[in-house]
Amino acid sequence: MSIESRSGLEFPNDPGALRALIRSGRYAGQTSGLAPGRVQANLAILPADWASEFLLFCQMNPKACPVLAVTNPGDPMFPTLGRDVDVRADAPRYKVFRDGVVVDEPTNILSLWRDDLVAFAIGCSFSFEEALIETGLRIRHQEEGLNVPMYITSIDTSPTPRFSGKLVVSMRPFRPADAIRAVQVTSRYPSVHGAPVHIGLPAQIGIPDLSKPDFGDAVMVNDDELPVFWACGVTPQSVAAKAKPPLFISHHPGAMLVTDLLNPQLSIL
Amino acid sequence: MSIESRSGLEFPNDPGALRALIRSGRYAGQTSGLAPGRVQANLAILPADWASEFLLFCQMNPKACPVLAVTNPGDPMFPTLGRDVDVRADAPRYKVFRDGVVVDEPTNILSLWRDDLVAFAIGCSFSFEEALIETGLRIRHQEEGLNVPMYITSIDTSPTPRFSGKLVVSMRPFRPADAIRAVQVTSRYPSVHGAPVHIGLPAQIGIPDLSKPDFGDAVMVNDDELPVFWACGVTPQSVAAKAKPPLFISHHPGAMLVTDLLNPQLSIL
Repeated sequence: MSIESRSGLEFPNDPGALRALIRSGRYAGQTSGLAPGRVQANLAILPADWASEFLLFCQMNPKACPVLAVTNPGDPMFPTLGRDVDVRADAPRYKVFRDGVVVDEPTNILSLWRDDLVAFAIGCSFSFEEALIETGLRIRHQEEGLNVPMYITSIDTSPTPRFSGKLVVSMRPFRPADAIRAVQVTSRYPSVHGAPVHIGLPAQIGIPDLSKPDFGDAVMVNDDELPVFWACGVTPQSVAAKAKPPLFISHHPGAMLVTDLLNPQLSIL
Repeated sequence: MSIESRSGLEFPNDPGALRALIRSGRYAGQTSGLAPGRVQANLAILPADWASEFLLFCQMNPKACPVLAVTNPGDPMFPTLGRDVDVRADAPRYKVFRDGVVVDEPTNILSLWRDDLVAFAIGCSFSFEEALIETGLRIRHQEEGLNVPMYITSIDTSPTPRFSGKLVVSMRPFRPADAIRAVQVTSRYPSVHGAPVHIGLPAQIGIPDLSKPDFGDAVMVNDDELPVFWACGVTPQSVAAKAKPPLFISHHPGAMLVTDLLNPQLSIL
């Protein structure tokens, strides 16, 4: 989907102006390709009495759940992600879970906000995909206009008392020399999943058939390519939903929070 | 072969004392495991009228031919590799090629030294193997007491008018997550071959059968492992011999020049 075809809107490259457009309710779609160069984030919003344990879960599983930023309980602003970033209205669309069940998919959560809610911004692969493309690599699902294929693995996350579940991974195929380059490039971005967790032998991590992803779209892996697997931000979302807190709010898949941070700012090297 | 079984000698850990022992002619064997922590180097010695072109070849093929140090024409000392490092006698054994043919394998080249000779010290995988072991990885051929398996690939080096040939690679098997770690660790050591050049699909680089290396010993690659391939210092040696200069001298395989440099000093990160 090109930017131009989306709702007939023109999208500003400035992230603050883009958030203002989204906050106004005029756009509720995916953010891939919008505000090029800016960090986009997954969202997880929980009551304070669940949030501390969720933070512990994230810290125990940093490749799947790299925490970019947190809010103070009750405060809807992310001061470290940019100017005037309001978690209640600046993502295009949300998913609201009550006791683990999706009850609504609203375009803002102003009416749901509470004094005890804590929001987490979690790193997203859009940032490292941009870095891969800038180094000359090609991302198969992007070139085919598809969503990245994602798989539930047999790898257990490190659990806390209430949060547990299997690691979810995303997959991008590369020729071997490009796979090595992809390891190097993504190693520089630990706050957006970092280096791959697996390469080349999907059965070893409980993926019997690459053509049947659990989420997203299947893409071709050619004979001269290896599938390369990264920990995926769907992991914290599925783990949080499975824990069945009374209230859990995430962004709608692909409809991310666009921040003011530049992707290269996340590079540790 | 354990250190103790070698010629009944005791080997000093101090690299200068070890070189003095070697220079005295009392040891002419392999240097693997000696002076732990110190950089060991491949040698290539050529007349000055061939040396400049060889340097160009090395610079065009930096992964196979990482130049650690050069000497001034006619000067046998490597001032940047340590105190009193004499290329004429400080490697345990040499190979002397005339017009591309091996004519001698002496323990020093004092009588062959000339005012127009230039020596190159080229990085060796011993350094990155030490770094891999320190990060907790296991090197199959070391554990089995074998030489690393090496293969002539179908990949052409970048040629100069007189130097050309196929890339030679060494192979170490790893489980996928360890292979990713090995890419990260060896990427920090560009002066000793750096990151792998290939992973997982040997047929793609002209290796039909891993059990039949062109040099060194075959090692087992288990079903849950990927073969990982690094550019190998045998490449410049075979390329130089093939060019048939009137005189070319290298170290004897495995009998390297031990320097004062510490392996971690080569790490760029």
